[in-house]
Amino acid sequence: MSEPSAAVLQQLRQLLGDDGVRVQPDAVLPDVVLRPQSTEQVSAILRICSAAGQALVPLGGKTGMANGHFQTAGEIGLSLERMNAIEEIDPDNRTMTVQAGCILQVAVEAAEELGLLLPLDFGARGSATLGGIVATNAGGNRVIRYGMLRDMVLGLEVVLADGTVVTSLNKMLKNNTGYDIKQWFIGAEGTLGVITRVVLRLRPTPSSQNTALLAVDDFPSVIKLLHSLDASTAGTLSAFEVMWPDFYEFITRAGSLHTPPLPHGSAYYVLVETLGSDPGRDAERFETVLGQAMEEGLIADAVLTRSQSERNAIWEIRDDVLELFKLGPIIPFDISVTLDKMESFISDIRTGMDALKEPVCVIFGHLGDSNLHVILGARNAAEFDYKALEHLLYETVERYQGSVSAEHGVGLAKREQLHRSRSAAELQLMMAMKKMLDPNNILNPNKIFAAEKIAAA
Amino acid sequence: MSEPSAAVLQQLRQLLGDDGVRVQPDAVLPDVVLRPQSTEQVSAILRICSAAGQALVPLGGKTGMANGHFQTAGEIGLSLERMNAIEEIDPDNRTMTVQAGCILQVAVEAAEELGLLLPLDFGARGSATLGGIVATNAGGNRVIRYGMLRDMVLGLEVVLADGTVVTSLNKMLKNNTGYDIKQWFIGAEGTLGVITRVVLRLRPTPSSQNTALLAVDDFPSVIKLLHSLDASTAGTLSAFEVMWPDFYEFITRAGSLHTPPLPHGSAYYVLVETLGSDPGRDAERFETVLGQAMEEGLIADAVLTRSQSERNAIWEIRDDVLELFKLGPIIPFDISVTLDKMESFISDIRTGMDALKEPVCVIFGHLGDSNLHVILGARNAAEFDYKALEHLLYETVERYQGSVSAEHGVGLAKREQLHRSRSAAELQLMMAMKKMLDPNNILNPNKIFAAEKIAAA
Repeated sequence: MSEPSAAVLQQLRQLLGDDGVRVQPDAVLPDVVLRPQSTEQVSAILRICSAAGQALVPLGGKTGMANGHFQTAGEIGLSLERMNAIEEIDPDNRTMTVQAGCILQVAVEAAEELGLLLPLDFGARGSATLGGIVATNAGGNRVIRYGMLRDMVLGLEVVLADGTVVTSLNKMLKNNTGYDIKQWFIGAEGTLGVITRVVLRLRPTPSSQNTALLAVDDFPSVIKLLHSLDASTAGTLSAFEVMWPDFYEFITRAGSLHTPPLPHGSAYYVLVETLGSDPGRDAERFETVLGQAMEEGLIADAVLTRSQSERNAIWEIRDDVLELFKLGPIIPFDISVTLDKMESFISDIRTGMDALKEPVCVIFGHLGDSNLHVILGARNAAEFDYKALEHLLYETVERYQGSVSAEHGVGLAKREQLHRSRSAAELQLMMAMKKMLDPNNILNPNKIFAAEKIAAA
Repeated sequence: MSEPSAAVLQQLRQLLGDDGVRVQPDAVLPDVVLRPQSTEQVSAILRICSAAGQALVPLGGKTGMANGHFQTAGEIGLSLERMNAIEEIDPDNRTMTVQAGCILQVAVEAAEELGLLLPLDFGARGSATLGGIVATNAGGNRVIRYGMLRDMVLGLEVVLADGTVVTSLNKMLKNNTGYDIKQWFIGAEGTLGVITRVVLRLRPTPSSQNTALLAVDDFPSVIKLLHSLDASTAGTLSAFEVMWPDFYEFITRAGSLHTPPLPHGSAYYVLVETLGSDPGRDAERFETVLGQAMEEGLIADAVLTRSQSERNAIWEIRDDVLELFKLGPIIPFDISVTLDKMESFISDIRTGMDALKEPVCVIFGHLGDSNLHVILGARNAAEFDYKALEHLLYETVERYQGSVSAEHGVGLAKREQLHRSRSAAELQLMMAMKKMLDPNNILNPNKIFAAEKIAAA
């Protein structure tokens, strides 16, 4: 695609003012970004671009891992950065209405001030925006307790490709009046419409938090432990994060920033956490259920945190993913596999990696959600083969009927892998939806599906 | 529409055998019902009917409250009654795969046998089928804890109007591979596709249950109590059912089958329940938090149940909706209104009812979900005016920006009210979806939208 036409840019500048169109003339990558201030301006932008067949890339915090926010030649960015207001926090109905450009952390803190919890949490909280988070159906560390982003959205406002504004700012938990339109746009990565406002469900703030790091001897015990803790901590289990020894031992190796709370040498390390409402009783209960699991032989060793700093120290180990880049060139993969197949899946990946001279294969994940992060690479850059590693990983995911994207979406990065997790009939149906809602393919084109595939569908 | 053509019936009989086509020749209502035994047969039926433009009404347990299962002249029923197998219960992944015709109670009991919970529960559990339940996005008594049906579905198999089978039997909690197709069909009342199989998420079975009936003096205290209990029973609050005195006092009146656990004369009666994992501690905690709420003045009086029979006695009061028909001719309405507007909404309804000589206006609901059941009628049949009552109720719902259907769907019964809760843009978008997936309008036509509206859209 060629550069945006001067005529289109002229119309957009007239609409938005000089402040509303950011152009970086010297950029290597094309960089025209629109900065509307209202839903009406978003609608007008889409009418102009729709008429001109001008492609747009909706932009949030640009923290996505699947490159869904990449602008390629000829595409104009549509940033929601100036639509970042928290429009309302409603303590009676425990909802929050925000504009799409609102940053997650800002929203979380505003809810906190009223004693309410927006239970979404992940590393990019300081830059990710609610619009982008809804568009990618973000997950994170507390899915086992509170669900994916989809489970937190009550209402949406979306602008369609032709400029139609669909305002559906529902605040009620139960609302069965026809098709649940918002579901179409959640997780659609900006390819079906531009999200401009979101109504989020808020929860009561927990008043107790109990965290432990556990050592477990074998994978069947990990599964049993998950089920046992989920049952015995009724409704309060908020994290069940598993680190394989290659992860735990590297992050806490001698000379690293971390002191290992449990000695090296175990088969699995599990970070568990509950969020409750009764500090005294919850702590006692947490100890009791872990003690029982130990008696049953499910846990080989355990450290319970006694302070916020001890808790932070354990979470910092789990979250220190960047440290892995010291291993050499690596690719972090985000996939799902069902629990019954997980051990065998990992064994096949490791066997595949054995062919390399100095392979890197490091695994951790949100096990309660079937979600693994698999890090593959090579200590020696000369041995690193992106295509081969990608093929090994995704081909194995396909064989195990897993998901090539658990929580990061498809974007550009996984477009060519989508067929491994979705049938031809499913892909056909998705493309029909895309064609219906965006017949000129101007909304984040080439994301999820290549334009030529949609055209041929 | 005229009767199904002899040629079409002939083709269907050839496909399904005599056993597969049930015809009741003497019925006042048309009654041709197909009884396929496999997804392949459903697909073949749809290919035949699609080619012939023959309308079909998918049939589950026929327990829906919005007449979504009504067959009108010329329409053929498509019953999933012979596709009722539980195909798999997977204890590792805690999922259950069932055919659409499987009855809810059968599925619940099969899960129970493996120590797992399918947390959906409502009155029609003995006849409602999973296919129908998914198609209507059913709610029930535990939505505050476990969500609507939508939150329990991991995967679906759907047959489209043209016979295409879309198999999407996902079992993973996190799966962001493109558009989440199953969401399109959940709650679509059989108008977009025929659901043939469902993967459900199962939960650990709770081991404690604590139930109380509370008297509350005013509505702001009801809201405060809901929020306070939700916070202090972290993740275990499973019911918050409010009965207005007109409901409670009639159901437990002298001469009724029920003994009132709390005396008449209070402003509100609230049934609360928690489902936990530690019988001893949970009971103690339940008493403590209710005691605190009493000290804070939120609760005026309380009865805690000490046995299963006491618990049943309280639930039987809440569930004895049929008793209300003794008041005279009535209409039960299922609507949502946000909590902040609820008191004023009800006051307006009561004022509207004052015009009648002997009005019936009885209210109860799942307050934690914004869901009210409003029963309007007249003691004297001569004063009963269906249209006027319906108008009063729905016009008031519209003024308060509520939902004309909380958990029962739209079907035929609420089709003409849909515009009160959905904007023109939303309706337009829904009809575009219908046209895309069912261009000949053969799937449950006239449900949710009148055929002529779709044609004109």
